[in-house]
Amino acid sequence: MSADPAGGEPGVPATVAALPVALDAAGGDHGAPPNVEGAVEAARAGVNVLLVGDRVRLHAELGRHPGSASLPLEVVHADDAIGMDEHATDVRSRPQASINICTRLVKEGRASAAVSMGHSGATMASALLTLGRLKGVDRPAILTHLPARGGFTTMLDVGANADVRPAYLAQWAQLATVYLRVLEGREQPTVGLLSIGEEDHKGSALVLEAHALLRELHGHGVNFHGNIEGRDIFLGTTDIVVTDGFTGNVCLKLAEGEAKVMFGWVRDAIQSSVRGKLGGLLVRPALRGLADRMDPSTYGASILIGVRGLTFIGHGSADARAVKNALLRAARAHEAGLVPRLEAAFRPAVPTP
Amino acid sequence: MSADPAGGEPGVPATVAALPVALDAAGGDHGAPPNVEGAVEAARAGVNVLLVGDRVRLHAELGRHPGSASLPLEVVHADDAIGMDEHATDVRSRPQASINICTRLVKEGRASAAVSMGHSGATMASALLTLGRLKGVDRPAILTHLPARGGFTTMLDVGANADVRPAYLAQWAQLATVYLRVLEGREQPTVGLLSIGEEDHKGSALVLEAHALLRELHGHGVNFHGNIEGRDIFLGTTDIVVTDGFTGNVCLKLAEGEAKVMFGWVRDAIQSSVRGKLGGLLVRPALRGLADRMDPSTYGASILIGVRGLTFIGHGSADARAVKNALLRAARAHEAGLVPRLEAAFRPAVPTP
Repeated sequence: MSADPAGGEPGVPATVAALPVALDAAGGDHGAPPNVEGAVEAARAGVNVLLVGDRVRLHAELGRHPGSASLPLEVVHADDAIGMDEHATDVRSRPQASINICTRLVKEGRASAAVSMGHSGATMASALLTLGRLKGVDRPAILTHLPARGGFTTMLDVGANADVRPAYLAQWAQLATVYLRVLEGREQPTVGLLSIGEEDHKGSALVLEAHALLRELHGHGVNFHGNIEGRDIFLGTTDIVVTDGFTGNVCLKLAEGEAKVMFGWVRDAIQSSVRGKLGGLLVRPALRGLADRMDPSTYGASILIGVRGLTFIGHGSADARAVKNALLRAARAHEAGLVPRLEAAFRPAVPTP
Repeated sequence: MSADPAGGEPGVPATVAALPVALDAAGGDHGAPPNVEGAVEAARAGVNVLLVGDRVRLHAELGRHPGSASLPLEVVHADDAIGMDEHATDVRSRPQASINICTRLVKEGRASAAVSMGHSGATMASALLTLGRLKGVDRPAILTHLPARGGFTTMLDVGANADVRPAYLAQWAQLATVYLRVLEGREQPTVGLLSIGEEDHKGSALVLEAHALLRELHGHGVNFHGNIEGRDIFLGTTDIVVTDGFTGNVCLKLAEGEAKVMFGWVRDAIQSSVRGKLGGLLVRPALRGLADRMDPSTYGASILIGVRGLTFIGHGSADARAVKNALLRAARAHEAGLVPRLEAAFRPAVPTP
C-alpha cells in the first residue's frame, strides 16, 4: 500500500506527448500564481497542461518562470471566471467562464481532464451540465483521501450531495472500488459504511437501507466489510468509507482542523520549556515528515466521480504543490483509462442473481 | 475559560453529606474494578456514592481499597445487569437490572444522579423510561466536550438520535446554553449549527430548517452564531456545536481516532532516529500533558440532557479516573441545580414575539 495516493511522478512518463489536462488557471483563493507555478512543475514532470484563463494575465505569470516557454504548456483564453463568492448556478448563463471552457475541452476530447481549485459548486455544476453522468449513476460524488494508519483511507461523498438516497451510497461503493483498482492496483478493496455502531441494525434510516443494498452487492463487484465508525477512518479499517456528502464533508473538515490544532499544541507544548525547545530542535525533522503527510496539498485535489469525464476539484487555498499533484493525478487517471473502466464496470448496475 | 469542563475538585466541598450519586458499578468493559476504584477516589474527594451491583462482588472489590470502609460509600444490591452485548430494550423487562435501580434511585429522590459506563443504549432507555423527558423537550441528547483551541467545545447530540427533526436541534441549543451557563458560568455561550459551509443557504434540508428555527431563538435564550463547518469544532469557533446524533457520533469517534493515530505517528516519527529519540526524551513531559488533554477520561462521562433527572453515560472503556471525574461532575451538576434550571429556562419553549 502506497502512503501517498497522489502518486506523484511514477506512472507519468516524461516523454509522452499525451492529451493535455485543462487547468482552470485563475481558480482558487490566490488566483493565477499558484496555478501557473504548479502547472510549470507538472509540465517539467512531463504532463501537458492547458492553462485556461485571461491570456494577458497568464502570459505575464508564465514570464516569471524562466524556461517555461519550452515546456508543454499552452494558454487558452477565457474572458470570464466564476468568483469564489458567486453562485454555482452562474455556470448555466456564463458559457465563457473558465471552468466551462475546461469541461468543454474535456467533452470535445481536446483535454484529458478538467482541474480546478476554484468554486467547488461551480465546478460540479459545470461538469454535470457539460459532461453529464455515467450511465447507472444517479449522483456524482466527491472522492478524497485521508491519511490513515498503514497508508490512506478513500472516502466519498465529501460534499457533493448533502441529502442522499440509499442507492447513491451503493453506487459510490462501486465507483470507488473501480477507482482504487484502476489507480492503486487494489483488486478487492474493502468497503465500510460509516455508521454509529458496527452492528448491522444500528444507524440512521439511511444507513440501514444502504447496508441492505451493499450486502446484495457483496461479491458482485463490491467487497463489503459492513458498518464502521468514525474512529475507523484514521485506523484504516477499510480501504473505502462510504457516507453521505454532509457527514463526509464534516468529517473531512474536522480531520483537517484537528490535525492543524493538534500540531499547534505539539509546537506550543514543546516550546513551553527550555528542555522542550532543545528536544524540539532534535525532533523537528521527524515531525516535518508527519506534517507533510497530514497536509491536504499532498493529495492535490479530489475527483468528482460519476461524471462522463475526468474532473478534479481542489482546495481554494491550494498551493503550487497541490496544483502540481492534482495535474499529475489527473494525467494518471486518464492514462489508466479510469472513465472507460468505470463505464464498463458499471454497466450491470444491480447484479442479476 | 477553563481547559477542563470535567471540573474535578473545585465546587465539591469535601465535608457536605450530600445526596449520593448512584453508580452502575458493574457497567463497562472492565466490570467492577475501575468503577469501585473511581468511586473510592470520588468519595475521598467528598462525593457520596451508591455502588449499585452484585453485593458480594462489590464488597470484595471494596476490600481491596484500604480505608474505604470509612468513606461515604454504600452498596445497593442488584441481582441483574444488562451486558454490553444485550439489547437496550431489555431494560423494559428487567426491572432489577443495575441501571434500572440507578435511575429509580434518582426518580425516588434517593440519589442525585445516575452514572453508568455500561451499555449506552440501555442507560438511555432506562433514563427515558424511568425519569421521562423535560417538558418541551422532544428527544434527550447526549452532550459531550471535545478539546479545542482556547479550551473545549460542547457538542450535542453525539449519539442518542440518529434520525432527527429540525425542532430537536433548536431544543438542544437551548439545553446546552443553560448547561454551560449553570455549570461553566458562561452567560451567553455562542451556538453554531454544524453544516457544510458557513453560508445560510448551504447544508442539508435538515440544517436549512434548523437554521431558521435557531434564527428565531436568537436573542431569546440562544446566542446563535450561524452555520459552522467541521474544522470549527477544534478551532473553538463557538462554545456549542449543535448537530444530529449521527453526525455528532461520527465526529466524536473520528476525533478520538485521529488523536490516537496522530500521537502514534508522532511517537513513531520521533523514535525513527537516534537524534529523534534523544529529542523525544526531552519533549516527553510536554507531550504527556497534551495526551492527557486529548484523553476522553479527562471528561469522565457525557450527560444525557433533556431527561427529568441527571444521567451520565461514559465510555465502556472507562478507567478509574474517568469514573471519578464522572462522579464529581454529576455531584457538581446536582449542587448547581441543573435540572430545575433547565426546567425553568425551558418553560417558554418557543418565544412569543
